[in-house]
Amino acid sequence: MSRARDAALAAAAALFSERGYSQVTIRDIAALAELSPAMVMKCVGNKQELFLEVATVEPLPLPACPSSDLGQALVRDIFDRFYADTVEPMTRAIMLRLTAPDHQSVIQHFTSGYVDPLTERLGGDVDARLRAELAVSALVGFATMLRIFGADACSQRSDEVVRRYGALVQQLLDS
Amino acid sequence: MSRARDAALAAAAALFSERGYSQVTIRDIAALAELSPAMVMKCVGNKQELFLEVATVEPLPLPACPSSDLGQALVRDIFDRFYADTVEPMTRAIMLRLTAPDHQSVIQHFTSGYVDPLTERLGGDVDARLRAELAVSALVGFATMLRIFGADACSQRSDEVVRRYGALVQQLLDS
Repeated sequence: MSRARDAALAAAAALFSERGYSQVTIRDIAALAELSPAMVMKCVGNKQELFLEVATVEPLPLPACPSSDLGQALVRDIFDRFYADTVEPMTRAIMLRLTAPDHQSVIQHFTSGYVDPLTERLGGDVDARLRAELAVSALVGFATMLRIFGADACSQRSDEVVRRYGALVQQLLDS
Repeated sequence: MSRARDAALAAAAALFSERGYSQVTIRDIAALAELSPAMVMKCVGNKQELFLEVATVEPLPLPACPSSDLGQALVRDIFDRFYADTVEPMTRAIMLRLTAPDHQSVIQHFTSGYVDPLTERLGGDVDARLRAELAVSALVGFATMLRIFGADACSQRSDEVVRRYGALVQQLLDS
């Protein structure tokens, strides 16, 4: 039962982040998990319950580097995930936010996973909050261009982009 | 017939950008346009044809201002649309891209409406292209934070944000 539950949750997480809430059915999840639809429902419940269980926004990993290198490191991480063809948590969060039945919970996950840790790292006060929001804006926008709108010039000149755009993210963090 | 067609197209445009492709039905469009579903189909065709007709990405309006003020003006425009509660074309483009049946056409509209005009304004060469993509990254990210993830600190301090974030967009344009 527990193994079936894990398989159902993993399949649901993959499908929801790829297609969005409304375009995934219990039948799709069951097929990917190699279970019957009835078994999926028995283990985890209906589609909305399944969604709420897996629609977590993974926290933005803050690179272990000196604070003065954080901007470039965060931009490089976006490229690294892009070239490794792994899930980009920031664009996944956008997909969940735009298609999820419960918008507010996705916004809360995004804020606590992305904006809050950066705010804390920057000192935790009101101005740190503003700087964190602006730095996350720049990062989420870059991830969007790369993953959602296929920015050709950027994807061909990653070192240059890490240098230029990373320096600006750093300025937002420091300002 | 032409008036019914216009009403169907306007209703479709509003609903698709608000809910995404898959969560809109011909019945929804007909209800909003005050037409019968059969009349909608007769005027415009099926849901996919209707979508392709209205899924245009409005070009980013380039403010009429000196080039040295462009960064701040573009950020201020995002705030102005937010406070006026009008459609934000950049987040609308994300919604269309993530939910549309034909991803490639949305990407092309986005590139020709957003990245190309800015590339041209910056001189039209390879480096102008990169600068345009990076500036659009910063803008689309800010619009996303404001509209999709509800950036509280930013929305409360718009003058400060226009100054700080606009200066960075300007650096991306100039670099």
